[in-house]
Amino acid sequence: MEKKIVTISREFGSGGRSIGRIVAEKLGFKFYDQELILEVAKESGLAKEVVAAYEEYATHKNSFLYAIAMSNGGGVYGGLSFANQIQIAQAKVISNAAEQGNCVIVGRGADYILRDREDCLNVFIHADMKFRAERIVRLYGETNKAPEERLRDKDAKRKVFYKSFTMRDWGVCQNYHLALDSSVIGIDQCADIITKIVEESRESPRK
Amino acid sequence: MEKKIVTISREFGSGGRSIGRIVAEKLGFKFYDQELILEVAKESGLAKEVVAAYEEYATHKNSFLYAIAMSNGGGVYGGLSFANQIQIAQAKVISNAAEQGNCVIVGRGADYILRDREDCLNVFIHADMKFRAERIVRLYGETNKAPEERLRDKDAKRKVFYKSFTMRDWGVCQNYHLALDSSVIGIDQCADIITKIVEESRESPRK
Repeated sequence: MEKKIVTISREFGSGGRSIGRIVAEKLGFKFYDQELILEVAKESGLAKEVVAAYEEYATHKNSFLYAIAMSNGGGVYGGLSFANQIQIAQAKVISNAAEQGNCVIVGRGADYILRDREDCLNVFIHADMKFRAERIVRLYGETNKAPEERLRDKDAKRKVFYKSFTMRDWGVCQNYHLALDSSVIGIDQCADIITKIVEESRESPRK
Repeated sequence: MEKKIVTISREFGSGGRSIGRIVAEKLGFKFYDQELILEVAKESGLAKEVVAAYEEYATHKNSFLYAIAMSNGGGVYGGLSFANQIQIAQAKVISNAAEQGNCVIVGRGADYILRDREDCLNVFIHADMKFRAERIVRLYGETNKAPEERLRDKDAKRKVFYKSFTMRDWGVCQNYHLALDSSVIGIDQCADIITKIVEESRESPRK
């Protein structure tokens, strides 16, 4: 079965977004990442800050922004909590993107939302702590928090967000067709491997 | 860092052993699988049937062969249970094979035993139930048990064996450098990807 959609789940700092962008360029696919939040925000009639806050603070039960995200009212699905509205809207945006095909979607639980599509290649990118720590400092600069601590926080948040959104465990091999350690295989070779699998799927009868 | 050892953990019926054999042929590496049990048996002074029984029946607490495997005495490490002797001997055999390098090792918790070696590429091969069910019937024939049931039993055994041997969960992306769904990517392409990563590691400064 030809793979027309690539979803990329990734550990923070692993280079998953960069890999997704390179794959999209190589295949001439549309690339969905931050702009997806905007589309979701429009779709759900919510401000993009609330959507971002919902995702960022999903594990901070004591956070003010989380309180907003979980609170009721507003939006085109009035009556549901913002969180539910965002999840519904997000699923709609991702499903519509997938329906058009030829796209790479990073994060947002797209692998789960599109789990029944056989034209979808689900990828997980991870890397060791040293590689990710160096990378986030280089890309996002230093903070008063040690990079390892920032990474552990992000990992915990993504784990809980994914579980709450999908009821599945994050980073389990069987949930992905392909999982790559970018600190060993390298950003470019990871992109090459994904691209080749999509190209190969066009000739192959395999599902 | 050049990868001189490939370890392959795999779901029963996923084709992991076949992939390992193809990779070994392509790279001119030595291939360790069943013969490893023989070496372990020699090393530990135990009959290969007992070693095989230990692995096969590790989760059948009520099994006679398991009782034998867990019982005391005999072997070159007399005083320890057979199970402990086998684990010690297995780790020694795998470490010696790795020390010589240029080898593919399938199963046996080699990824864990060699976890501190940077010249080791750890791979996990999995596949969907339909692919594996068709494969084991084709390779091992029908039994009075449905293939899906045989697969679920084997999966459960490997999971428990790996956990008891390594204290880690089986099939977690972060424990492998590469995880592939052979039912989507295909046996040959899986072998090509692994071979290319090893070849690439020879030119690349990456760890």
